[in-house]
Amino acid sequence: MTTDDLYKALFRPGTVAIVGASDSPEKTTGRPLDYLTRSGWPGTVYPVNPTRSTVLGHTAYPSVRDLPTVPDQVFVLVGADDAIDITRECAELGVTVVTILADGFVETDPAGVRRIAAIREIARNSRTRILGPSSLGLVNLAERFLLTANAAFAEADLPRGGVFVASQSGSAIGALVSRGKGMGIGFHGLVATGSELDLSLGEICLSTVGDPGISSYALFLENLHAADDLRRFACAAAVAGKPIVAYKLGRSEEGAGLSVSHTGALAGDDAVATALLHDLGIARVTNFEALLEAQQFARLVRPTGRGNPRPRVAVISTTGGGGAMVVDCLAVAGAVPTAPSPETVARLAERGVDTGHGVLIDLTLAGTRYEVMKAALDVVCSAPEFDAVVAVPGSSARFRPDLAVKPIADSIGAAKPLAAFIMPDAPEALTLLREAGVAAFRTPEACAEAVVAVFDRRAPKSDPVPRLPDDGVSEVLDEVRSYDLLSSVGVPHAGYEVIDTTLAGTGRISLPVPAPAVVKVLSAHVPHKSDIGGVVLGIADDQALDAAIKEISTAVSHHMPEIRVDRVLVQEMVKGLGETLIGYRYDADAGPIVVLAAGGVLAEMYQDRSVRTAPVDLDTARDMVGEVVSLRALTGYRGAPRGDLDALAAAVVAMSRLGEASGGTVVEAEANPVMVLPEGRGVVAVDALVRIMNPKVGR
Amino acid sequence: MTTDDLYKALFRPGTVAIVGASDSPEKTTGRPLDYLTRSGWPGTVYPVNPTRSTVLGHTAYPSVRDLPTVPDQVFVLVGADDAIDITRECAELGVTVVTILADGFVETDPAGVRRIAAIREIARNSRTRILGPSSLGLVNLAERFLLTANAAFAEADLPRGGVFVASQSGSAIGALVSRGKGMGIGFHGLVATGSELDLSLGEICLSTVGDPGISSYALFLENLHAADDLRRFACAAAVAGKPIVAYKLGRSEEGAGLSVSHTGALAGDDAVATALLHDLGIARVTNFEALLEAQQFARLVRPTGRGNPRPRVAVISTTGGGGAMVVDCLAVAGAVPTAPSPETVARLAERGVDTGHGVLIDLTLAGTRYEVMKAALDVVCSAPEFDAVVAVPGSSARFRPDLAVKPIADSIGAAKPLAAFIMPDAPEALTLLREAGVAAFRTPEACAEAVVAVFDRRAPKSDPVPRLPDDGVSEVLDEVRSYDLLSSVGVPHAGYEVIDTTLAGTGRISLPVPAPAVVKVLSAHVPHKSDIGGVVLGIADDQALDAAIKEISTAVSHHMPEIRVDRVLVQEMVKGLGETLIGYRYDADAGPIVVLAAGGVLAEMYQDRSVRTAPVDLDTARDMVGEVVSLRALTGYRGAPRGDLDALAAAVVAMSRLGEASGGTVVEAEANPVMVLPEGRGVVAVDALVRIMNPKVGR
Repeated sequence: MTTDDLYKALFRPGTVAIVGASDSPEKTTGRPLDYLTRSGWPGTVYPVNPTRSTVLGHTAYPSVRDLPTVPDQVFVLVGADDAIDITRECAELGVTVVTILADGFVETDPAGVRRIAAIREIARNSRTRILGPSSLGLVNLAERFLLTANAAFAEADLPRGGVFVASQSGSAIGALVSRGKGMGIGFHGLVATGSELDLSLGEICLSTVGDPGISSYALFLENLHAADDLRRFACAAAVAGKPIVAYKLGRSEEGAGLSVSHTGALAGDDAVATALLHDLGIARVTNFEALLEAQQFARLVRPTGRGNPRPRVAVISTTGGGGAMVVDCLAVAGAVPTAPSPETVARLAERGVDTGHGVLIDLTLAGTRYEVMKAALDVVCSAPEFDAVVAVPGSSARFRPDLAVKPIADSIGAAKPLAAFIMPDAPEALTLLREAGVAAFRTPEACAEAVVAVFDRRAPKSDPVPRLPDDGVSEVLDEVRSYDLLSSVGVPHAGYEVIDTTLAGTGRISLPVPAPAVVKVLSAHVPHKSDIGGVVLGIADDQALDAAIKEISTAVSHHMPEIRVDRVLVQEMVKGLGETLIGYRYDADAGPIVVLAAGGVLAEMYQDRSVRTAPVDLDTARDMVGEVVSLRALTGYRGAPRGDLDALAAAVVAMSRLGEASGGTVVEAEANPVMVLPEGRGVVAVDALVRIMNPKVGR
Repeated sequence: MTTDDLYKALFRPGTVAIVGASDSPEKTTGRPLDYLTRSGWPGTVYPVNPTRSTVLGHTAYPSVRDLPTVPDQVFVLVGADDAIDITRECAELGVTVVTILADGFVETDPAGVRRIAAIREIARNSRTRILGPSSLGLVNLAERFLLTANAAFAEADLPRGGVFVASQSGSAIGALVSRGKGMGIGFHGLVATGSELDLSLGEICLSTVGDPGISSYALFLENLHAADDLRRFACAAAVAGKPIVAYKLGRSEEGAGLSVSHTGALAGDDAVATALLHDLGIARVTNFEALLEAQQFARLVRPTGRGNPRPRVAVISTTGGGGAMVVDCLAVAGAVPTAPSPETVARLAERGVDTGHGVLIDLTLAGTRYEVMKAALDVVCSAPEFDAVVAVPGSSARFRPDLAVKPIADSIGAAKPLAAFIMPDAPEALTLLREAGVAAFRTPEACAEAVVAVFDRRAPKSDPVPRLPDDGVSEVLDEVRSYDLLSSVGVPHAGYEVIDTTLAGTGRISLPVPAPAVVKVLSAHVPHKSDIGGVVLGIADDQALDAAIKEISTAVSHHMPEIRVDRVLVQEMVKGLGETLIGYRYDADAGPIVVLAAGGVLAEMYQDRSVRTAPVDLDTARDMVGEVVSLRALTGYRGAPRGDLDALAAAVVAMSRLGEASGGTVVEAEANPVMVLPEGRGVVAVDALVRIMNPKVGR
């Protein structure tokens, strides 16, 4: 099926059927037919209800097999098990899309598991696409097409406009449409994607990108299921110049703690989500209202480079307190509130605007008048020292929007992206601005966050994501094999020798690396060597080495009697200026990610790390080095010697390519610690751990 | 003047005069008289305007000297210099309060400095109290008394209620009153305190605490000027059971970097503000709307102990997405979203409410009905595992508040503090809840932040703040005198001996402490010894000591030829399990503060520190130890040995008492580093720096 066919069946069908439609419009199962009837949708709708001859005035049919024609989309409102049977019938009839309302498709109970399998099987074996289960349906306001069971759409005068909403939560589409109406923000369409057993949010959104009525996207996300589809959508939307803003739940989750390496715990779910959304050029907001309020601002800003997390922003106010709030919130959000240059101050003075000095361009003394605000905006919007402008009208906005609000609306064509925070409660001013195309914010926090999130968008990374074997055998590599694999992509490690433990006590052992050395048990079955006495530090000579081998053999045998300690690894102890961790992990949702973290306990205690989807280029790796706070100690901080951070960035690039280089079999890899040597002398891993997934063979 | 007299003159005067009153109500100078006339205020108002015989229908007088009686309050609307003359006249006449609108009283220009001095002199030499300058005036809605030039008060139907607003920003009072009206939150009074050259925000608020019409306070703060007054107000409000919520600007400021110690930079302005507000039992919010939205919730929660930053919260929703947002935001804000106990689940089931499992008590499957929500609230509000309950109604709240909103309103008398986040745009539901006394929030972020901020309130610390000498001579103490002072309050230090540098090269020097030792230049003029070669580490024997003394003498003389290096200090090198910094500083606004920070560069890089107003008790010091992230490494983290954190807390208590112990002369003090020894072995400072302020004598 083409993207276009999918879009038509979902949002512009000619004929739909509603299975389980009730004659009571106030019931959940009565809503979709009631909405379609009242909206004046010109298409054909068939209620399917074996107990009635008509439903809400429409001829009813006993089953989908009895319909006069095959509908483009069927909305199934019956219980989970019946819904499966009806979906199967629809597939056999050649229905393009079946949307399922029912719950009961969860992996936590056996009936749910069976149902999930049944739906997946239907989808696999037919051309029919399935939306849901647990989908409250979808809406195309531009076409007056409301195939949803969400109670919020009973309302008259639903706000039409250019925003498309895709939500994994069904209730959120109702909340957003009501809030949009309150804000004066209109929608093209909305979809509740539910469990996404077949159609994913990304795939659905991708199908909508060609609709010229859609200007921008608002995503309400609970997870990052089907990240590949999201990537394809993000790339297409970027090409079409349609920005995407997302609100994602799960900021407080603790991350996957069951990983063999530290990388998993460090790159918790939410850090991966942040990295993925950033790499896809999607602006993430944490203020719920910013999801809608940021839409218009996002349309004014073109993503560039790797994103700009520190835009220089001018703040112009007719309220000192309100302007100061925005300056404060912008700085907290990471923007750079920027004072006008002497040239700009002079140009403002020429136009009769005395701004005082400092970061805030406050017009209170100049007077709250149209001419003053317009002149200030004219000058500031053409000044080169700013990336964007935020205007902050005060009390006058409530009853006299002509004074300080109208000039903002009249400046929307200016060369600079423009937003407004309205200090008082002033619904008319908000509407006036939004109708003119100016993003207007009710709170300074949402305003500041949106400005930064929108500027920090990059052009989406479109790298294809290597896939792990679906059904393989996991294998942990020992330290030597791990070094070999990391070496092959270009991550350097310290020199070592392997010694047979049976030589201990024979007098034939000599220290093969310069003292002091470290001895470590060499076994794929002992990933956390130190925890069980498998590491001895500070070996000075042959005798100490001999003793250490015996000590390790005894300790490991004591803790893990099932392990045979055949070999140890002897390595020179490398002292760097600082320690880091470089990790790679295949995330089930986001695909491969790379992590650079502070060394030792700092990474965990301070969550001091930087995460990106892999692979990364050298510029991105340098950004990552800049984001790890503890590495500032190696930048010549307080006169301390500089570490080789260029080599560190290169090692991050190398690690990030592990997926491609290994043919996509690496599940996780970690070089930890990686010692950072003085500038020009490189970095060197002194421990490593890799887990791969071998394809199953011979079946 | 008694507090009561001040309150009457400010908010319940019998007679007021308005100097510079204009006959045009739309002008700033026309507003106060227009408002008073239209509001039906029963008192007497005299416009003063030498150019007119009447103003807005009232008889005008040429000057304050010509008034028939002496007014209780005079609002002066003329320019800065005239305002000073009129204030002086008022003082001579015995006016109780003069409120000044004019700007122009800033310390950055000479005219401003002169004007400030003039106002201060009038205040000092008369019984007249002065509000402002730069005050937009004040409002007592309960008395229909509107003596303000803020344009927002032109509106009819200003919302009356129990909230009192005090704001250092004049425009904020207008914004808050309009937002309150939009939210259904009413005000008893509002005051714009302006520059606070005489009357401070704290003093004004203190005068209002006895008014039974005031239920709670909202403060909009730009600084913490006159913290002693704020403390007195906070203590009185706590006794009266009237909660205080504050929004404070300046979260992004970089802190005072000009201090001789590190303590100043670490405890930046905003960290001090947070500490002070916390110690005063004031809930600080960073979401602007939470300042008003939190008011009702704050009235339901009694501050306890040192505050509770991790309240256990039940979330009950009829929208899965909305409930999940609140859970997520609560966890991010520091609360503990808490699942119902098996007993509570069973009691819910008895009442016919199937909640599923997990943290969120979602009623979507049980059905959005009054009985379901009410039963769930009844059970949860009496369950011991929760400190508070947040209810989250979904789409039904917009048009059917009887279903899920009314039962929340009907539960306000329950044993548990209750708040609500309304997922859709539903103004009527918000009003219904607020009228019933339930704090209702428009955004999940404000809701979560308010719940945590309100629970984290403590009973205010009422310790009197020792004052530094107003006009003293600053003196830096050398390391030995610094140790002596710290020792006297109970901060332990490493043993040392002082050696005369002239002994170097004589062969008469022997190492007086166990090796390895450190040698340091001993001089009050060299606070940062290491920077100029004034420290040599690792001294093993007498010869090395001799050489080190020469090296130090040479290095210091090279960098600071004006310094005579008479003496060095020889100290045993103490190795602890970890390093910290303990600082004390007299903050000009907040009074004495104590800081515990991570050692070395960690404190600065990660802003890893805890700040409180001093003195602190042992429990608070233990809280501080718990807040410094790097100290987790000394709690047995990953099997590492435990540090003596009890001794560290005791040292923090000792340092925090430096102000009292020294008779209030210590400006700043720092023990850095303080080595934390293994459990039971204490802590020991190995460097110290104290600056005191000696009272001037002999003049």
